[in-house]
Amino acid sequence: MLVQDLTKQESLELLARTRLGRLACALGAQPYVVPVHFAYQDNALYSFATVGQKIEWMRANPLVCVEVDEIAGQQQWVTVVVFGRYEELPDTPDWQSARAVAHQLLQQTAMWWEPAYVESIHGATRRPLVPVFYRIHVVQITGHRATPRAGGVA
Amino acid sequence: MLVQDLTKQESLELLARTRLGRLACALGAQPYVVPVHFAYQDNALYSFATVGQKIEWMRANPLVCVEVDEIAGQQQWVTVVVFGRYEELPDTPDWQSARAVAHQLLQQTAMWWEPAYVESIHGATRRPLVPVFYRIHVVQITGHRATPRAGGVA
Repeated sequence: MLVQDLTKQESLELLARTRLGRLACALGAQPYVVPVHFAYQDNALYSFATVGQKIEWMRANPLVCVEVDEIAGQQQWVTVVVFGRYEELPDTPDWQSARAVAHQLLQQTAMWWEPAYVESIHGATRRPLVPVFYRIHVVQITGHRATPRAGGVA
Repeated sequence: MLVQDLTKQESLELLARTRLGRLACALGAQPYVVPVHFAYQDNALYSFATVGQKIEWMRANPLVCVEVDEIAGQQQWVTVVVFGRYEELPDTPDWQSARAVAHQLLQQTAMWWEPAYVESIHGATRRPLVPVFYRIHVVQITGHRATPRAGGVA
């Protein structure tokens, strides 16, 4: 197969049409990666979660990485990797306009109702259901496209 | 939706039937996440790559995280997260038996031919095509299953 760089514009377009990505954060030397649903606008990814390991780690270290992809096969895929910075959008006056953007974007993607309906049972511990809204600022974005090579093994 | 823990056995079963995951590594405070194809056996994930950012970062910091999932919808998914340790399988006498395991597993998944056919062009730099074989030892594994809640919003 042949692997080629995407342009920044192509990478941003993939980000904008994608709703599911994988978010990596790190505490000390230990990375952690989980799937997240998000919506993209103006150089930032908006999402929310209930408080848990991911939020706690991003509060401690805001450097994150988000990967999105469209994988049609082992030789046919597009993937985009974002190095980003976590920013929480708390429910205070200073953050109302950013939260309004998040609400509007996430409503459009039909994820809005989710926090109120999540009931989470981890062992015997019930997790608090208060959603934390956040955004990931895109600091650096790169993308690659793989295609089968003409004459190569299919 | 209702989110519940998987047992360790259920988590390992998902790992064993999955070939595509997302691998996170970290250098300093910066995490990095990319898709990887792998094959699981005896508490380890086997894979290979050409030398690049991922391999260089894992050589510098062997603590990694691998996430695999089966996502049917926003309320219906299974995801497994592995905290693991990177181990390279160099082409030296000490590593021949581990490399043989890797070769056999990866041949079965039809990924074996791939390294020799990868032609990678990043900007003007051609990447060396020597494959690096490695495995990720599973140090800790957790899994979760989400299901729509009866009476909840579909």
